[in-house]
Amino acid sequence: MLKVPEHQVAGRQAIDGKLGPLIDNSGHFYKPLQDDDERGTRELTFYHSFSSNTRIPHHIRRFFPVFHGTQLLKASDGSGLRPHLVLQDITSDHLNPSILDIKIGSRTWYLEASNAYIQNCFHRDKTTTTVSLGFRICGLQIYNESGFWKPERKLVRNFTADDVRSILRMFVSSNVGPEPDFSFADSVYGGCDGILERLMELKTWFEDQTMYHFCSCSVLLLFDKESFLKGKTPFAEVKLIDFAHVVDGNGVIDHNFLGGLCSFIKFVSQVLADSKGSTMED
Amino acid sequence: MLKVPEHQVAGRQAIDGKLGPLIDNSGHFYKPLQDDDERGTRELTFYHSFSSNTRIPHHIRRFFPVFHGTQLLKASDGSGLRPHLVLQDITSDHLNPSILDIKIGSRTWYLEASNAYIQNCFHRDKTTTTVSLGFRICGLQIYNESGFWKPERKLVRNFTADDVRSILRMFVSSNVGPEPDFSFADSVYGGCDGILERLMELKTWFEDQTMYHFCSCSVLLLFDKESFLKGKTPFAEVKLIDFAHVVDGNGVIDHNFLGGLCSFIKFVSQVLADSKGSTMED
Repeated sequence: MLKVPEHQVAGRQAIDGKLGPLIDNSGHFYKPLQDDDERGTRELTFYHSFSSNTRIPHHIRRFFPVFHGTQLLKASDGSGLRPHLVLQDITSDHLNPSILDIKIGSRTWYLEASNAYIQNCFHRDKTTTTVSLGFRICGLQIYNESGFWKPERKLVRNFTADDVRSILRMFVSSNVGPEPDFSFADSVYGGCDGILERLMELKTWFEDQTMYHFCSCSVLLLFDKESFLKGKTPFAEVKLIDFAHVVDGNGVIDHNFLGGLCSFIKFVSQVLADSKGSTMED
Repeated sequence: MLKVPEHQVAGRQAIDGKLGPLIDNSGHFYKPLQDDDERGTRELTFYHSFSSNTRIPHHIRRFFPVFHGTQLLKASDGSGLRPHLVLQDITSDHLNPSILDIKIGSRTWYLEASNAYIQNCFHRDKTTTTVSLGFRICGLQIYNESGFWKPERKLVRNFTADDVRSILRMFVSSNVGPEPDFSFADSVYGGCDGILERLMELKTWFEDQTMYHFCSCSVLLLFDKESFLKGKTPFAEVKLIDFAHVVDGNGVIDHNFLGGLCSFIKFVSQVLADSKGSTMED
């Protein structure tokens, strides 16, 4: 039985008769190939290239959803059979995951794109935190006792640098409000299994790899309080998603992704440092 | 006696009755403050801020020209007395310096700039290597037996990624031609006094500093074959120049400069690796 993903925080959704991704109960995520543009084909091309690429180190492959090929499925918009990418559903191991979707890079367009696409992205990049911070939050949900806090798209789009800092604090607090308690900061962001360590691994790879440029790609942070409290691992994960705009690196590092990633790392580091300051003051 | 700098490879030049920088015989570089825009004021503001900033580590300060205040001087365009920045002439210690001027960053504009300025930069960034490589060569001179090779501005503006690789090879070769011999690669780019080590120091600082965003700023590489052959140090230097577009970092790292710097580091590393391969083959 296919259904609409419960924990999707950004991107096109399979609701109100629209075309969007579906999941099943066995941990698969089905992403429809669009026919209105080249995105689907591009993403499929990337997954084919990446999954057969022997130069990807094992510890880097873990950041990417597993690719299981394509499958013809009834599309969510009622338009009939349509090819779907079959991917790993990265939320399926989590009961109540808090999720941040962060689009990395100070530029979401690329030279090979159409002029209209470039102008559209250029405008969006300037009016969100993309240009100023080198990344923008695209969507999120944060779990707390009363359920999920999942701000509307319009609100997310207007986030400032200070909003980003607040979100990163709330993400690791037991409360969702103006006075975060940083309960989980040390274990989620810090330590050798923490998110910062994972981001540093990614950074090291991006300083070297010249195969792909990940335009408009997101880093997804997942953290499951229940898994953490039950001592399950991993309770926090870092994944890369959305490869519809990956282009050939042509022997040059992805300086756009790398710069944005370094900026995001600095933000997370500062929240971790603040949390230590706040604990010491207590 | 003031004169036109002999080793200026980019920027406005004090020739043909135009306004440009001047030097004297005691190691000073006089840069006129423009009155047609805010550049001069901005650069002066930066030098004032930077030179009194106690949070700049000593090893980072060495990358910047020493600032000696301002002075009223007869402008090179004959327009009379005009305030000039008084800076260290970073070429004065070198007899025949080979110089590369590399404008760092995949974006030379900034959100605070005027729309006209942004559009102008946006176009230039797309049509040079700025967007694709995260940096562009703005000017250069390479010394060899027959004098300096100093390509025209028009040629430099059309450099491709492959041209950049060729230039980085020629910079450390005893000949200027299609078959570089990499004679000086190991000592100029490699080693603990080499350019790569200096660039890595800068990188480490840029991963952390959130005070300034260095838009449209250049890294200058200087290398003096004669100093090298005579065993003088430093025979190779890395300097930062052009701060007319430095803006407040607002607590965010300069991800634009950092990304471009990492890309440039990768290019230099590859030339160094190629030179070792070529030596082993000899």
